[in-house]
Amino acid sequence: MASTIVRGAVRVLGTVAAVRTPRVIKNSRYITATVFASGGVLLYSSYSGKVDAAQKCSNLDTSTFMAEPITELRILEENSEDMKTKMELLILRIQSEFCRALEQEDGKQAKFTVDRWRRHNPNEGGGITCVLQDTETFEKAGVNITVMSAPLSKQLQASMRARGKELPEDKQFTFFAAGISSVIHPRNPHVPTIHFNYRYFEMQDEDGKNKHWWFGGGTDLTPYYLDEDDVKHFHSVLKSACDRHDPQYYPNYKKWCDDYFHIQYRGERRGIGGIFFDDLEADNAGGVFNFVKDCAEAVIPSYIPLVKKHKKDAVSEAERRWQLLRRGRYVEFNLVYDRGTKFGFATPNARIESILMSLPLQARWEYMHKPEPGSPEFKITEVLKNPREWV
Amino acid sequence: MASTIVRGAVRVLGTVAAVRTPRVIKNSRYITATVFASGGVLLYSSYSGKVDAAQKCSNLDTSTFMAEPITELRILEENSEDMKTKMELLILRIQSEFCRALEQEDGKQAKFTVDRWRRHNPNEGGGITCVLQDTETFEKAGVNITVMSAPLSKQLQASMRARGKELPEDKQFTFFAAGISSVIHPRNPHVPTIHFNYRYFEMQDEDGKNKHWWFGGGTDLTPYYLDEDDVKHFHSVLKSACDRHDPQYYPNYKKWCDDYFHIQYRGERRGIGGIFFDDLEADNAGGVFNFVKDCAEAVIPSYIPLVKKHKKDAVSEAERRWQLLRRGRYVEFNLVYDRGTKFGFATPNARIESILMSLPLQARWEYMHKPEPGSPEFKITEVLKNPREWV
Repeated sequence: MASTIVRGAVRVLGTVAAVRTPRVIKNSRYITATVFASGGVLLYSSYSGKVDAAQKCSNLDTSTFMAEPITELRILEENSEDMKTKMELLILRIQSEFCRALEQEDGKQAKFTVDRWRRHNPNEGGGITCVLQDTETFEKAGVNITVMSAPLSKQLQASMRARGKELPEDKQFTFFAAGISSVIHPRNPHVPTIHFNYRYFEMQDEDGKNKHWWFGGGTDLTPYYLDEDDVKHFHSVLKSACDRHDPQYYPNYKKWCDDYFHIQYRGERRGIGGIFFDDLEADNAGGVFNFVKDCAEAVIPSYIPLVKKHKKDAVSEAERRWQLLRRGRYVEFNLVYDRGTKFGFATPNARIESILMSLPLQARWEYMHKPEPGSPEFKITEVLKNPREWV
Repeated sequence: MASTIVRGAVRVLGTVAAVRTPRVIKNSRYITATVFASGGVLLYSSYSGKVDAAQKCSNLDTSTFMAEPITELRILEENSEDMKTKMELLILRIQSEFCRALEQEDGKQAKFTVDRWRRHNPNEGGGITCVLQDTETFEKAGVNITVMSAPLSKQLQASMRARGKELPEDKQFTFFAAGISSVIHPRNPHVPTIHFNYRYFEMQDEDGKNKHWWFGGGTDLTPYYLDEDDVKHFHSVLKSACDRHDPQYYPNYKKWCDDYFHIQYRGERRGIGGIFFDDLEADNAGGVFNFVKDCAEAVIPSYIPLVKKHKKDAVSEAERRWQLLRRGRYVEFNLVYDRGTKFGFATPNARIESILMSLPLQARWEYMHKPEPGSPEFKITEVLKNPREWV
């Protein structure tokens, strides 16, 4: 059920957008549940699945987004100060900006495939999955947003309690979650893989009480070869975003990232780290939102320069093979450890293709492969075993 | 620490073996824990890690094995009627026969790499891992045996109780496990992947009481294209092995196999099944051992004819791509669901390379790949979604 959207000149958060030509959005019959490690939220009292028909006339400019918002435009406009609205519009913008930046790095001027989808029960929301596959610069690039609200299962309630959330046993809870998640696997082994994920949760009981909200997220880099300048640049950009809010954020979240992306049975990290945080709340929700916004806006300046710098580097067959072996490790982490992936697998009617867009196009496992001591392959492995401070 | 073994003419279970030339066995500094879903056993009272030096003079012929037994030869000889001895000698023989049969199918006359290894604590046993990689007929062929004894962790005791084993809470338990595990990923997409695993467990408390023992195992096939004759042949051979012992074994263990090798979030099986069983015990341990022996001996006649038949089939690029996509699913099952793999990951100082030899040399994930209805790729997918009866 493809939906065609035509709209005239509209007011857009204070600016005037030009007339848009019709755009076809590919809808999928698939369902969702993505890359969230947890859940929780205040639902819009009027949250509705009847979005497609209703959103053709609006003052909200959606022309730069990869697809129409998941939530009905009228509801977004009527609740413009609500954190749910702010987060949905933020992730729509970040998705679009990042996809366009990646497209610009692609020699063939490739365009992202855009799948706008809803959950089986459309009242539970949906998402927009954008994928670029097997192009000149990228083997697989996935940028997904999800905006969903649903009852919180007993199992998930228990896991929330284990994380310290106070949820009375005799209440039913509903949650809202809005997040963006992305993994980019470039073709050239000298361009690192990047992952980022920023999410907002709300949760409340059936009486509208026992409310909880929090933010989580992070950005991390997985190089195949160690270019110290690249790693320092990447960490510096993240640190600047953190330092604008709290000088403790970067050191704390850098350590959290090293601890989280850990393939324990191999004693090595997935990559050279970045930042990772969860359960972030404060008296001032707006302040936390601004921190998350700054982190999400730091993705492009932290990463795109590395793509530009290395995308045309010379590549040997041995380097390609090493890249594929390391991609095997990426698969191992994501399938064995990643909380978001596990949460997705455990969610009924999850949209598996949106969850597993994080896996590389190709990966390799060789028995007893060991990089030669002193080789560039050995050098990166040492860093993965012993995380370092970069800035 | 490579061990070189020289031995003269020796009596071998009633036959006379020829003088052997020295053979170097590659030992690994790596440690173990493999592909067991569970554990349990009566330890040899004199179980010892000092094997290499002691086993140079013996009446037991080990010349046909891929490497020397894990248990000291003297102990094996002194306990020739013990089920631990019988199982260790069985898996050594099955490993060797299967490796030789695979080598014969390889055009380049490739030879398996043989790694004989012990756990960090050599008193806990070890294993023999045989791998053939990137040869003409096989992309990756792994055949591993493990013979180990160790204290049963609290976590594993709890999981044993959950499976119905009566283990008093106030006792310490030790277990013995001997098993063979193999996964063969051929190069030609028309040759299926096979997996089999046969294992024996014993378990007892510190006072030598509360003894438990059981067998587990299975053989299953993962074709990339459906050749019904192949599948019928494979299931027929397994059914014959089962029927010699109990007419209910094949139907019961065929269903258990379909239920176990299930990628739940995709609603599809890993392959076209086979047999799978666990916790198999009876008044007559010898009878159960003979059943397991017959199943293990059925591996070669069930599988090698399929390798011979298809190893030189013509292959298109599209068929190769499909094979790699299906190998991605194999990786998913093994990393997300397989109990043996999870058990290995959770075991301290596990020999990860022996556990993950099950992963293919290469695998692929494409976003939203769908075989065209009616195509050969579609046909096998339908069988994976809806398991069928074959004999």
